[in-house]
Amino acid sequence: MAIHVREFHDTNKEKIAELIEWLSSFGKTTNEGVTRLLYSKAWCEAQSALKNKMKAIGLDAYFDCVGNLFGRLQGTDEDNAVILTGSHIDTVIDGGKYDGAYGIVASLLAVSRLYASYGKPKKTIEVVSFCEEEGSRFPLTFWGSRNITGMYDIGHTRGLVDANGVPFMDAMKEAGFETEKYIQPIRSDIARFIEVHIEQGMVLERNQNAVGIVTHIVGQRRYNIRIKGESNHAGTTPMNLRRDAVVTASKLISFLTKKAESIDSQLVATVGRIEAQPNVPNVVAGEVEFSLDIRHHKQHVLDEYCMSVFSYFEEVAKSNDLIIDWKQWMNVEPVAMDAMMHSKIKTLAEQKQISFQDIVSGAGHDAQVFASTLPTNLIFVPSKGGISHNPQEFTSSEDLEVGVKLLTDILYQLAYE
Amino acid sequence: MAIHVREFHDTNKEKIAELIEWLSSFGKTTNEGVTRLLYSKAWCEAQSALKNKMKAIGLDAYFDCVGNLFGRLQGTDEDNAVILTGSHIDTVIDGGKYDGAYGIVASLLAVSRLYASYGKPKKTIEVVSFCEEEGSRFPLTFWGSRNITGMYDIGHTRGLVDANGVPFMDAMKEAGFETEKYIQPIRSDIARFIEVHIEQGMVLERNQNAVGIVTHIVGQRRYNIRIKGESNHAGTTPMNLRRDAVVTASKLISFLTKKAESIDSQLVATVGRIEAQPNVPNVVAGEVEFSLDIRHHKQHVLDEYCMSVFSYFEEVAKSNDLIIDWKQWMNVEPVAMDAMMHSKIKTLAEQKQISFQDIVSGAGHDAQVFASTLPTNLIFVPSKGGISHNPQEFTSSEDLEVGVKLLTDILYQLAYE
Repeated sequence: MAIHVREFHDTNKEKIAELIEWLSSFGKTTNEGVTRLLYSKAWCEAQSALKNKMKAIGLDAYFDCVGNLFGRLQGTDEDNAVILTGSHIDTVIDGGKYDGAYGIVASLLAVSRLYASYGKPKKTIEVVSFCEEEGSRFPLTFWGSRNITGMYDIGHTRGLVDANGVPFMDAMKEAGFETEKYIQPIRSDIARFIEVHIEQGMVLERNQNAVGIVTHIVGQRRYNIRIKGESNHAGTTPMNLRRDAVVTASKLISFLTKKAESIDSQLVATVGRIEAQPNVPNVVAGEVEFSLDIRHHKQHVLDEYCMSVFSYFEEVAKSNDLIIDWKQWMNVEPVAMDAMMHSKIKTLAEQKQISFQDIVSGAGHDAQVFASTLPTNLIFVPSKGGISHNPQEFTSSEDLEVGVKLLTDILYQLAYE
Repeated sequence: MAIHVREFHDTNKEKIAELIEWLSSFGKTTNEGVTRLLYSKAWCEAQSALKNKMKAIGLDAYFDCVGNLFGRLQGTDEDNAVILTGSHIDTVIDGGKYDGAYGIVASLLAVSRLYASYGKPKKTIEVVSFCEEEGSRFPLTFWGSRNITGMYDIGHTRGLVDANGVPFMDAMKEAGFETEKYIQPIRSDIARFIEVHIEQGMVLERNQNAVGIVTHIVGQRRYNIRIKGESNHAGTTPMNLRRDAVVTASKLISFLTKKAESIDSQLVATVGRIEAQPNVPNVVAGEVEFSLDIRHHKQHVLDEYCMSVFSYFEEVAKSNDLIIDWKQWMNVEPVAMDAMMHSKIKTLAEQKQISFQDIVSGAGHDAQVFASTLPTNLIFVPSKGGISHNPQEFTSSEDLEVGVKLLTDILYQLAYE
């Protein structure tokens, strides 16, 4: 055992990058990306290898009944409160090496260093590798953290199938987690959750900051907008007799973009998907459907934005004799990170002369699931060019190491002091 | 023979509608549309049945080597100049009963009535059923009229395959037109061409006019526009750091639409097709491609419009740090119909108290192919709701009959007087 502990008791900054490489070998794609979908072979191998690593550094490693993997370092205090730290093992299809993986190996490395240097902590620490966060195999996100927090149970997977028609429960059984034995793996012993993650944006890089200390995770509202105009011959229909769904969509998209820019600099609104019907060059499009993804960390800003956008949509529908309707299919409320710990993390960063800034997370993270029920914090390291969900995803060893060091200090303060 | 002539010598307004129904039986689809693709079984049956009809009314019926079907009524004059009248037999997939078909049966009916009433004409008249105009089986339009006018030969079909991978030449052979025997079926004996067609637009219906006398057929320019921005995370990329291809496309589409409306009321510009990449709700689109179809009957208006639109595109590309490029893949020049005959047709319409108007054809027609080489005229009857290329395509018997009557009078004036 001691040998293994030594293996990890190494402040060489390359170590974290090596662990990232090692973990990326499970599910590596031909173009150096990673595909590690929930309950797949690559996923099973990665979780099993992580379990061995956990054991190797002296943690008690165990799975819960949905496949969340925990590595427990028992504290000496009598209370059973657990400090949970980690991230998710699953990836998007052909994603990068860092998303999720970094948070797991950073936590492992921090805990192994603490254990090697200071022995057992006062408070129990558990490193977690959540089974699922992305929703990239089945249309269900945060399957791991929502089980632990009691928000989801097996009933939520009923009827879900993957792209190959494999039912969720069959995939789960295949991976060794018998659905018949499912008991909601809710954890009431978790006192707080700390996650480190790559930013997946370009704010830290632009500001040349090593670390972003997250204040809030945005709320997200997603809609499908459908415009029903009239399909016509592109040559024989004068411009003034058209009810062109593409032209109307362009008008709405221009409006909602300008409105997002003007209402608050931290609001983002995205039309990522657009489909026209019949979608041929010589026919005026009779129908367009597009997605609208809106994010901000304050509910009232989201409300104000939605109200002004949708009242404009109504106005356009009326004045252009078209039908415009919208259906909301996602509504995630914004959450705040733990303010007390946030300020302590700042102090730690200052002491260690780490350049940092407050940041709002525009992406969803397991931290947001925990934040609604217990004190939670999230720390970002820079993403090169803001690229994520892509084999090009990259963070330098130096930047990765800064995150691990800060996490180590935080865990020391929380569990050892 | 006399019996057949009597069969057609019938001014009952239902007659033309009956012929339309009869012709639509070749290639009828389950939802009452028509699919009669070049050289298909339905196409062969329709042309063969039309050949029999031609013979039945006393015409000399024959095919040329690409499948254009002619029904010749020899004139008594010594010169060999031919007045050609008719339209195309092919349809789009699940198209209507009237597009093309109306022009053929109207010509047949007009000639049969003239023959029955007045016997042989001075000038030779030929009714034509062009083999192909739509380009809906192979990516090639006006295959019939462009062979007759010498613009296309068999070389233009090299490499062309249909949606099932069938080569053009194999389909042609299969229909009985041996490509080895191909000699360009150019016709130097045609003195003029007259076509009647449904409007495929809603101008006549709106103006409550029975007939549109076409002054010009528009020029058409078609482009693919490609915007290359940057694909980013929809949550983590602030609005001001985005190079969003969908937002840029919306801006361009709004501009080009407003510009089309302002530059000339007869200019039409259509973005019928739009495709975003990667086209998912939570990713800022890095790339958009859209089609641009521009039509007007004056070259200088097309030039002016294109110049102003593309210089705006350049400006936007520069100021938004994106790549915008465009590729032209169609350039059809506008053509004028024969002015002398146009004014004679107006006089005839006035004499017969037919409500009429000048109209520009926004759609392409066989008439445009002929108009560049010989005096050509085109007459429209109304399309209900402007609907075309659709099983719902409809023109009332009364409106169809008005077109036949006017065509009969025109042919009388041209061939009998």
